[in-house]
Amino acid sequence: MKRNYRTKSKIGLLALFLIFTQVIFSQTNDEVQLRKIYDVALDQGKSYDWLNYLSNQIGGRLSGSIQAQQAVEYTKAELDALGLDQVWLQPVMVPKWVRGTPEFAYFETDPGSTTNVPITALGGSVPTPPKGIKAKLIEVQSIAELDALGADKIAGKIVFFNRPMDPRQINTFDAYSGAVDQRSSGAREAAKFGALGVIVRSMNLRLDDFPHTGGMDYGDTPLDQRIPGAAISTNAAELLSATLKLNPEISFYFKQNCKQMDDVQSFNVIGEIKGSTHPDEIIVVGAHLDSWDLGDGSHDDGAGCVQSMEVLRIFKEMDYKPKRTLRVVLFMNEENGLRGGRKYAEVAKKNDENHIFALESDAGGFTPRGFSFDASDTNFKRALSWKPLLEPYQVTMLVQGFSGADISPLKNDTIVLAGLRPDSQRYFEHHHSDNDRFEHVNKRELELGAAAMASLVYLFDTYGIETAGE
Amino acid sequence: MKRNYRTKSKIGLLALFLIFTQVIFSQTNDEVQLRKIYDVALDQGKSYDWLNYLSNQIGGRLSGSIQAQQAVEYTKAELDALGLDQVWLQPVMVPKWVRGTPEFAYFETDPGSTTNVPITALGGSVPTPPKGIKAKLIEVQSIAELDALGADKIAGKIVFFNRPMDPRQINTFDAYSGAVDQRSSGAREAAKFGALGVIVRSMNLRLDDFPHTGGMDYGDTPLDQRIPGAAISTNAAELLSATLKLNPEISFYFKQNCKQMDDVQSFNVIGEIKGSTHPDEIIVVGAHLDSWDLGDGSHDDGAGCVQSMEVLRIFKEMDYKPKRTLRVVLFMNEENGLRGGRKYAEVAKKNDENHIFALESDAGGFTPRGFSFDASDTNFKRALSWKPLLEPYQVTMLVQGFSGADISPLKNDTIVLAGLRPDSQRYFEHHHSDNDRFEHVNKRELELGAAAMASLVYLFDTYGIETAGE
Repeated sequence: MKRNYRTKSKIGLLALFLIFTQVIFSQTNDEVQLRKIYDVALDQGKSYDWLNYLSNQIGGRLSGSIQAQQAVEYTKAELDALGLDQVWLQPVMVPKWVRGTPEFAYFETDPGSTTNVPITALGGSVPTPPKGIKAKLIEVQSIAELDALGADKIAGKIVFFNRPMDPRQINTFDAYSGAVDQRSSGAREAAKFGALGVIVRSMNLRLDDFPHTGGMDYGDTPLDQRIPGAAISTNAAELLSATLKLNPEISFYFKQNCKQMDDVQSFNVIGEIKGSTHPDEIIVVGAHLDSWDLGDGSHDDGAGCVQSMEVLRIFKEMDYKPKRTLRVVLFMNEENGLRGGRKYAEVAKKNDENHIFALESDAGGFTPRGFSFDASDTNFKRALSWKPLLEPYQVTMLVQGFSGADISPLKNDTIVLAGLRPDSQRYFEHHHSDNDRFEHVNKRELELGAAAMASLVYLFDTYGIETAGE
Repeated sequence: MKRNYRTKSKIGLLALFLIFTQVIFSQTNDEVQLRKIYDVALDQGKSYDWLNYLSNQIGGRLSGSIQAQQAVEYTKAELDALGLDQVWLQPVMVPKWVRGTPEFAYFETDPGSTTNVPITALGGSVPTPPKGIKAKLIEVQSIAELDALGADKIAGKIVFFNRPMDPRQINTFDAYSGAVDQRSSGAREAAKFGALGVIVRSMNLRLDDFPHTGGMDYGDTPLDQRIPGAAISTNAAELLSATLKLNPEISFYFKQNCKQMDDVQSFNVIGEIKGSTHPDEIIVVGAHLDSWDLGDGSHDDGAGCVQSMEVLRIFKEMDYKPKRTLRVVLFMNEENGLRGGRKYAEVAKKNDENHIFALESDAGGFTPRGFSFDASDTNFKRALSWKPLLEPYQVTMLVQGFSGADISPLKNDTIVLAGLRPDSQRYFEHHHSDNDRFEHVNKRELELGAAAMASLVYLFDTYGIETAGE
């Protein structure tokens, strides 16, 4: 337990004794407070009810949609009802991309002999021409393979990116990182060689029939050279690949009429409890309120939103008066723009606010395993010193690494950024697909995540961070 | 890394150096072997296919049922196909309890105004009379409350045990332990005060409509004084309790025609790979092949069976030759008798076999969090020394505690007993109910459990245990 960093300086025996007794006392008090947090979360939790509403009454809430606006209004009203010191909407302009009518695709082995396959337009994709695109397919496993094939083999075809996520990865986010370049950059790269479109194997470790959307980036590809991209379900990707091995001459047809509209007005939703002794030190707990339009966005990231709201509700319920200012921030537009995260950091900087700690939950509402920290070694060690307090709650994985997209613009030399790390095994079965549904969120797992977050917020509120100057 | 316990003795510098290099080498080799185990389990796993057959082609397999016999034959054939050194059936007589026709229950608020509620007979219960039982209800929260009320308040009534599992427990098995006495002893205790029957709130942390069965024990209650017991779904328990508060005079009706038959012949299924250098030291990995008759027994304990089989299959696939003899044991009759576990230990003792390590998986096919050990401090410390090897696989919870029911009869002064500890949050939503279904088992989570088990078996095979005499 290396919690009291003041012991570094030279101090007398009496001071040592006083500090020692204080450490003993505060340790016991910390244990009591964490137990209270968990009791409130597990016995009187509100997060599951909120998520039920957000998922089943509002549903998928892509930036710029009516549902996104409904989610803003709903969560603001719920935060208002908590009796926080202040609740407000922070305006932010967001991109608006719409899917249009359902996509349609098939492959044709012989003229007239077609097999329909489930696809979904990638977020941000251009549409196909109104009559769709029909062309021969070329299957590749990577962008490197695409480059090696070159224009001769690619021009005039539809490129089929089919590298699976690696099942041997223990953390499924590592498997995602190892495959997602096909989705994010595939269309941009294939266009360079004259491809007509790209079909990407869904980012899903399981074989099933759900196509998974997700952001793609055309970079500086001129508007008239952009080609449409769609994801195909893993089952259909397997079928297509097997069919191509039998007959490389099959053709593929797909049609989508998605569209990028003008930016529209939206909001980050913010609520805060003012700090009692260090009101100028701000702690943020947050998640993103927008989701993709498939499914209802329960895991990505409705869960994170209701957990973040629950953190402040738990403290109100416990009648805990934070020393620092605690803020819940529901960011708009993480999925296809990060405008909300950037806006929040921009306003914070303009107002010369001092953020000491920000915690994000954006990895699903599963049993929490731990947290990952983007922080100085000193502050990471401080977090590690709290491990014995978190272990009784099976929160044991405290590691250095990525925190979260929405809080990343807050990064500076002193702030501690952290991300909740739930068990990752089932996440990519749901992520960005129609299979991201409320029924796949477990009440207890969701609540345990909220309690773990509240515990870490409590500890940073109680002990603060070490700033560079100290 | 405190793996080499020989460093305790006085040794020269050269020996120290040799041992040091050996430790370094074996550490690296251990890392390589564990990675291989996980690669085979996650990339070429067979456990999920086996479970699919066991659950969907055979289904629930209560001791003495045709399904239990089918499960014996199926798993033996699959073990035969692995090319182990020996596969055999170990005869064991098991109790046979049958549910009969579906149970039926309702409560009546006014004459003729009834509400049906889902119940299931507790395993081992006597039937109601053919016409059922109808009586006033008395709700209690505990056996202590029952005792305090006494015969005056209890005689002639149906006792309704309604203490919920405590949602504040982090490990749901602790919540189970804190509530299950109502199910196991409720009927026995209520009979002492002249109750006509007992209805027990299902052991389920979630509010839903599934009644959960499970074993009950009449102890030495004479046959003619035994009263029937049934579980009621948590939703119906809540409804019943609320209704009783409005009107304590409501009556309850239930009917069940379950029956205890004569014992029948069954089998433990056993397969082994002979040890190359210490064939007389036996390592067991096992689970129970029987299940309750509701649902298909996927989590309890089909998952453990296929994981145990997978451990030996992984070693065959890796072409790993164990030093010790590795045995997979699929125990019969854990749920309502433990006859298989007792028989296995009895035969092992008769044959003077030397079991050094036994590992059981009987807590569901969820993401593995760690293992609990019933072992000497020295051997527990040895297991702890392997933590750095297991941590990359997120297997971090190595604790002392209960191992497993089926291996418990093997307990002696030297053997190391251990149980796989998967994430427990969702287990009791499925346990002993029609909601224990294949669709609720996740392929990766199941495979990660098998790989964790194989890793621990590998380590005990490589390093052995410290026996009392050393």
